[in-house]
Amino acid sequence: MIAGIELGGGKTVVAVSDDDGSLGEQFRFPTTTPHETLATAAEWIAAQGSIAALGIAAFGPVGINRDAPSYGRMLQTPKPGWPDFDLLSALAGPLPGVPLILETDVNAAVLAEVAAGAALACRNAAYITIGTGIGAGLIVDGHILHGDLHSEFGHLNVPRHPDDDYAGFCRYHGDCLEGLACGPSIATRWGKPAHKLPADHPAWDLEAWYLAQGILALLAIASPSRVIIGGGVSQADGFHAKVEARLRDLAHGYFSTLQDHQPYVVPPVLAQNAGIQGALLLACREATRAGTPLG
Amino acid sequence: MIAGIELGGGKTVVAVSDDDGSLGEQFRFPTTTPHETLATAAEWIAAQGSIAALGIAAFGPVGINRDAPSYGRMLQTPKPGWPDFDLLSALAGPLPGVPLILETDVNAAVLAEVAAGAALACRNAAYITIGTGIGAGLIVDGHILHGDLHSEFGHLNVPRHPDDDYAGFCRYHGDCLEGLACGPSIATRWGKPAHKLPADHPAWDLEAWYLAQGILALLAIASPSRVIIGGGVSQADGFHAKVEARLRDLAHGYFSTLQDHQPYVVPPVLAQNAGIQGALLLACREATRAGTPLG
Repeated sequence: MIAGIELGGGKTVVAVSDDDGSLGEQFRFPTTTPHETLATAAEWIAAQGSIAALGIAAFGPVGINRDAPSYGRMLQTPKPGWPDFDLLSALAGPLPGVPLILETDVNAAVLAEVAAGAALACRNAAYITIGTGIGAGLIVDGHILHGDLHSEFGHLNVPRHPDDDYAGFCRYHGDCLEGLACGPSIATRWGKPAHKLPADHPAWDLEAWYLAQGILALLAIASPSRVIIGGGVSQADGFHAKVEARLRDLAHGYFSTLQDHQPYVVPPVLAQNAGIQGALLLACREATRAGTPLG
Repeated sequence: MIAGIELGGGKTVVAVSDDDGSLGEQFRFPTTTPHETLATAAEWIAAQGSIAALGIAAFGPVGINRDAPSYGRMLQTPKPGWPDFDLLSALAGPLPGVPLILETDVNAAVLAEVAAGAALACRNAAYITIGTGIGAGLIVDGHILHGDLHSEFGHLNVPRHPDDDYAGFCRYHGDCLEGLACGPSIATRWGKPAHKLPADHPAWDLEAWYLAQGILALLAIASPSRVIIGGGVSQADGFHAKVEARLRDLAHGYFSTLQDHQPYVVPPVLAQNAGIQGALLLACREATRAGTPLG
């Protein structure tokens, strides 16, 4: 049996699987303090039986590079109490001997969508989430992309829409992509949260324009063959087609990748389960790598 | 003995090396038609003796993914006569049995700078070149990044400087990064080519501002630990420090990678030889992969 944790800013999901990563029993609870949240997760997992490996998909920024001193720790997250918290040590105590593997939530999500979802068998794919923030996970040339830290896609600078004078919501940069297009920026701009805006509201044209700018940057730098957009804010009818249309406008016929792959911008297949399923897939890999028996 | 070709828009360099990729005999000549250019290169190489492998570092866009039908071909380059030209077939005829490996010029350059230059031993690095165009090569998690095509960094969209109303020079996008910051855009804006503008000319502040925007996008997506800027336009005194200062302004203390790596924006160590040295390193790898004896 393997286990996964999806550690979100608002809620945490834990799950086990007795085979190759498919979703088994799960338990959801609110994310509170780091000690309490990780203890609740570890206690639930320990109660399920013997675990061959545990995959953790965490909000960020978080240290995911095994060779770096920051591996396993939360970094400068704005969430109070969490900066510098050592996630892996907090789990290693109550789950002694269990191999642990840590990734960002969006890297876990893109892994799951490539394994069994909207980017099935793609060697190059991106998963963008739009909610209270904006993030992206990338698989490039068949591998999860880390780099020195990991993608910080939301903090990309993008050109402003010529009719947009909103100051932006990002506490660090004001009008970076996240500042201009995250859920709270929509709510602030239009006086209503995204889920209360009808599909023909002008908010969606502006949102699609900014997302297209962000995806153009992904295309120009990491060249994914498909881009998945998930998260609460992406669920308006026709949103993905609208983003794709704006992206093709911006590309002006350049980028052979766009001509070769249609549709290019798609919704997730695994819906809200991509993160936890990715965590379970990571646990499968880690069990194999560590040589612990799977059942 | 191994051989390399650096195929540039204006000039081509061929070289051989009798050991582990260090630069031996070389020959430079103008790039003309594709048939004539490749024939000249192949003839010079064949005359040097028996070759264990040949690495080619080409301007782009070019098909570098071995699994794709476009592997080995030039793609939609604006250079007349070159689109769809099959580089590898043109070399396989005069150099029968020689294992060939093709990369972009900037991917070859970053490989060389990581092997023996300004990003020595970095697992994550980027090499940007600014000349008649703008391009970037990336090594991420120790591997050359391809994705579906390869980086098209020059065609990234960046915010405009508030005081800049220049239309931009890119034939596809107008004011993408390349359109706003390539050599010809500087010459058109200021009435003089970059190498005639003194280091204290305001052109360099604007140029640094745009490059910093581009590097911020690299940082947000691929997270390099170091960024090298080469190419003819990068050689003004103090240019790299100016770009780094603008980048740190834009980052507003975010991006732990910037805090962990100082200096972050540096000139190449291998100067104009990075591309051809990268081609030779690729040939070394290919000789090993193909199992051909190295001499």
